[in-house]
Amino acid sequence: MAKSPENEHPIKTLGWGARDSSGLISPFPLSRRENGDEDVSIKILYCGVCHSDLHTAKNEWGNTNYPVVPGHEIVGVVTSVGNNVKKFKAGDQVGVGVIVECCKSCENCEEDRENYCPKLVYTYNAHLHDGSKTYGGYSDKIVVDQHCVFRIPDSLPLAGAAPLLCAGITVYSPMKYYGMTESGKHLGVVGLGGLGHVAVKIAKAFGLKVTVISTSPRKKEESISKLGADSFLVSTDPEQMKAATETMDYIIDTVSAVHALDPLLSLLKLNGKLITVGLPDKPLELPISSLVNVRRMVGGSNFGGMKETQEMLDFCAEHNIVADIELIKMNDINNAMERLAKSDVRYRFVIDIANSLK
Amino acid sequence: MAKSPENEHPIKTLGWGARDSSGLISPFPLSRRENGDEDVSIKILYCGVCHSDLHTAKNEWGNTNYPVVPGHEIVGVVTSVGNNVKKFKAGDQVGVGVIVECCKSCENCEEDRENYCPKLVYTYNAHLHDGSKTYGGYSDKIVVDQHCVFRIPDSLPLAGAAPLLCAGITVYSPMKYYGMTESGKHLGVVGLGGLGHVAVKIAKAFGLKVTVISTSPRKKEESISKLGADSFLVSTDPEQMKAATETMDYIIDTVSAVHALDPLLSLLKLNGKLITVGLPDKPLELPISSLVNVRRMVGGSNFGGMKETQEMLDFCAEHNIVADIELIKMNDINNAMERLAKSDVRYRFVIDIANSLK
Repeated sequence: MAKSPENEHPIKTLGWGARDSSGLISPFPLSRRENGDEDVSIKILYCGVCHSDLHTAKNEWGNTNYPVVPGHEIVGVVTSVGNNVKKFKAGDQVGVGVIVECCKSCENCEEDRENYCPKLVYTYNAHLHDGSKTYGGYSDKIVVDQHCVFRIPDSLPLAGAAPLLCAGITVYSPMKYYGMTESGKHLGVVGLGGLGHVAVKIAKAFGLKVTVISTSPRKKEESISKLGADSFLVSTDPEQMKAATETMDYIIDTVSAVHALDPLLSLLKLNGKLITVGLPDKPLELPISSLVNVRRMVGGSNFGGMKETQEMLDFCAEHNIVADIELIKMNDINNAMERLAKSDVRYRFVIDIANSLK
Repeated sequence: MAKSPENEHPIKTLGWGARDSSGLISPFPLSRRENGDEDVSIKILYCGVCHSDLHTAKNEWGNTNYPVVPGHEIVGVVTSVGNNVKKFKAGDQVGVGVIVECCKSCENCEEDRENYCPKLVYTYNAHLHDGSKTYGGYSDKIVVDQHCVFRIPDSLPLAGAAPLLCAGITVYSPMKYYGMTESGKHLGVVGLGGLGHVAVKIAKAFGLKVTVISTSPRKKEESISKLGADSFLVSTDPEQMKAATETMDYIIDTVSAVHALDPLLSLLKLNGKLITVGLPDKPLELPISSLVNVRRMVGGSNFGGMKETQEMLDFCAEHNIVADIELIKMNDINNAMERLAKSDVRYRFVIDIANSLK
C-alpha cells in the first residue's frame, strides 16, 4: 500500500491544502524528503497567494490531483544544504518559484529557459522525477533542488518579495525577451492585479512611460500616486480609447478572463507588441486586419528561466521593487481566496507562514 | 458637371473595368494626366491578377467605388519621364505595385515604410491627393510618381515578374522584418496560391527548409518537384500534423479564408513566429495557451516599402525567381476571375496587355 503524504518521507511537515473542488483549505499533514546532495532545505516564512492557487484548489482548470497544497511564491531561510551545494548556506534568505525540478539536459534547460523544459516539475500538483508528489508553499518547510532555489537580496523585505517569484518574473521575462525595455517607450499594462501592479513598477524602473488600462476608473488614483504610472485609461470608455489610438509601443495583458483584443491592439503603434501572460480558458478573437494594416504582433510568455529569475530579483533589489501586499495568517486563507476571486486585494495576499504556526 | 473618366485628363487610355458588383470586366475608356516633373509615363505590357482585384471588382470588401479598373501588379516600359526624374529614362523596364502616391513626409515615409503611410494612395479604387480617382493596371498606360516606380532588372522575364510587385513583396517584407531568413531554419508556408508559391521560392533562396502546408494532397508533387519545397504537410491529416508538432521556426500564413490558427501554432517550436498576410473577413480564434505555454508569437504584415520592393526585385533577379503564371489575354479576364475564385490557377494569372490590344 502506498504511504500517506504524512508518512511518505522522513521529515514531518505541516501543510494546508484542499481535499476537493470546494477549494476549502485546511491543515494537511505531509512530509518532506531528507536533504540530498543537491538539495536546499528551507524553513518557509512567507508564501504569496497566486490566482493559480485558487484555480487549482477549486479544480477550475480540470487538472487538480487532490489533495493539493498550493503555493509557488515561497520565501524562507535555509536550514541545511547538501554536499554539492556551494551557493547557499544555512541562514541564507532564499526563494522558490513555479518549478522545483527540470531535466537539466534539454535544449531549453541548457539555454536557461527551464520554464519551457518539457519535463519541468511544478511546485505543486505535479510529480517529481522520482514519482513522489509535489506539495507547495502553504507549508512550514520544503526541500528543493538547488537549481530551482534563488537568493533573495538582503535589501528586499521578504514578505513583499514573495510575489516576485511568480508575478514578478512573469512580467519581467517577456519585457526582456520581446525587447520591451527601451527607456522612453510607452507601455500599456492591462489589468491591475498581482501581475499588473508589479509590471508597472518594473516598467518604471526600466524608464518606460506607463499607462494602466483597466475597466475600473476607481483604480486611477492608486495607479498614478501609489504605483507611479504616468497615466490611466478606462478601457470601457470609447472616447478615451479612441484618443489613445496608436500611442503605445508595447502592451502587457495580464487579464485571464475572456476579453476583446481588438481595442487593445488599436492602442499600439506600428511595430507594436501585445504580450499576453494571462490564460483565458477560451480562445480570444483575433482580428487579423489589426495585425496587417498596421504591422503589429501578439506574443505570449510563461514565467521565466532560473538565471533570469535571479536577475529579476537582483534588478528589483537595485530598484527597491517589491509587491504591494496584504499580509494574512493561514487562518485567513479561505476568506482571502474568496476576496481574490472578486479581485478584492491590493495587490497580492501573502501568508505569514511562520507566525501562523504559533 | 464633373468630367467623365474618359475626358478628365488629356491622355486617352484604354482600360478594362467593372461597373457594378457583378464584377464583370469590360472595356472602359479612361484618361491619364500629362507627365509631370516627378512622373514616369509607362506603356503597360503585363498586369498580374491579384485576389484583391477580384474582391474589389465584386465589392466583396464593401468599399468599391464603381467604376473600378483593377490591377496593381504592373510591368511595362517607360515612354517619357519628367524633368526631375533621373533614375528612369524612356525604354526602361519598370514596375508599379500596390500604391501610386504617399505623403513622403510622415515618419513611415521617412523610414522607408511607405506601405504604412496614413496617406498612401492605392493604385486603384482610391483618390490621388489632387482628388482625381485612381485606375489600375488593367489598362494600356499609366502615369505614376517616380517614387512609386521600380526598376525591373533586365534578367527577369517581364510577365513572371509582374506578380512580384504585390505577391512577392507581401511575403518578402515579413520575412525580412520578422527575421525569418536565417539559413537552415524551417519555414511552413500555408496556402499554395499566388503568395504562397512565391514565398516557397524566396524562402529557398534564403536557404530555408520549406514545408508547404495545404488542405490539398494533390499539391504535394508540384510543391516539391516544381517549386522546390522540401516537404509537404496535409493540414487536414491529424496524424501528419501531430508528427510535425514543434518542428518549425516560422510560418507564413497566406490564407484569406477564416481558418483555425491553433493547429498551425502547434507546428511552431519555442520562439516560433506565425505571420499572417491574408485578410480573413472575420476574426480568427486565438488560443492564448498556445502562445504562453510554448513562447510563440503571431504577427501581421502588409506588402512593403518602396526601397524594400526594389530590394526584393533585385533579390529575385539574383536568384532567378519569378512567379509561375498563366498568361491570358484581356478577353479571358472574366473566365480567369471565375477560376481564381475557385483557386484554379497555377499560380497567378497575368494579362498580356500589349497583345490584347491587337
